[in-house]
Amino acid sequence: MKLSQGVEWGLHCTALVAQAPDGIAVSRRLLSEHYGLPEAYLAKHLQALVRAGVLTATPGPRGGFRLARPDEQITALEILEAIEGTAPAFLCQEIRQRGTGAVPPEDCTRPCGVSVVMAKADEAWRGSLASVTVADLVALVPSHTRKRNRARLTGEPTGDR
Amino acid sequence: MKLSQGVEWGLHCTALVAQAPDGIAVSRRLLSEHYGLPEAYLAKHLQALVRAGVLTATPGPRGGFRLARPDEQITALEILEAIEGTAPAFLCQEIRQRGTGAVPPEDCTRPCGVSVVMAKADEAWRGSLASVTVADLVALVPSHTRKRNRARLTGEPTGDR
Repeated sequence: MKLSQGVEWGLHCTALVAQAPDGIAVSRRLLSEHYGLPEAYLAKHLQALVRAGVLTATPGPRGGFRLARPDEQITALEILEAIEGTAPAFLCQEIRQRGTGAVPPEDCTRPCGVSVVMAKADEAWRGSLASVTVADLVALVPSHTRKRNRARLTGEPTGDR
Repeated sequence: MKLSQGVEWGLHCTALVAQAPDGIAVSRRLLSEHYGLPEAYLAKHLQALVRAGVLTATPGPRGGFRLARPDEQITALEILEAIEGTAPAFLCQEIRQRGTGAVPPEDCTRPCGVSVVMAKADEAWRGSLASVTVADLVALVPSHTRKRNRARLTGEPTGDR
């Protein structure tokens, strides 16, 4: 079981957009260069984040991406689901209704215990991600990295060579 | 993100083995026929469950599979990890250290916030599965299905046509 690389990209890029001062849109190029990501492939994920209501996109030479809502109102789960979709990792094939031991349909009005257990685990996973906001992600970035990011996002000198 | 079908097979087959009366080993053929599963492919997963200490295998014409430990001591997580492995679904590629925004190595002694958040979600998922035992899975099987399974496992008539 593997999540796509896009999840890491989406979480980092959204957290970086959240570090831009008010009124500053972050270009796709800046995002791709900042993290060394392929721009065309990143574009696909950024569009998914726009469709999911995480980011807004403004066209034009000074255009780019902004958060669609305040950072404390956007969760890590929304970003993950924008990229990976909402389908649970466990897909019940109802094997209880197959083979010589097949349980008759009239005894299958309640979901199979195995799928209930897997669904609860999926809820625990999503619940954990729903409890983390973009504001929390930004707070986990060390303060000097945040300061340097802010300078980059505004086009100020960063003090780097 | 998808779990393999083997997870469903492993959970159901272990729960069925747990329903066999003491001293009765459940053959691979019975398991594959009971759930309508391809025997050769199921064999691979059953071997993984033996390696993981969930099942024991006895060779010979009356051989088959038994639980390696009491059903209340085997968790759904052990079965899942026997089939899927223990690697987390999220693989951090450390993109914070790439590109023009690369954080220098000396500032990366602590794990990246994104990977911390994803690791916590993974723990919540595995924790949920670790809280469920094979005894719980058996208890979720309706009582008349359990009775019928027991008859099949002992070779008694099941009352089915």
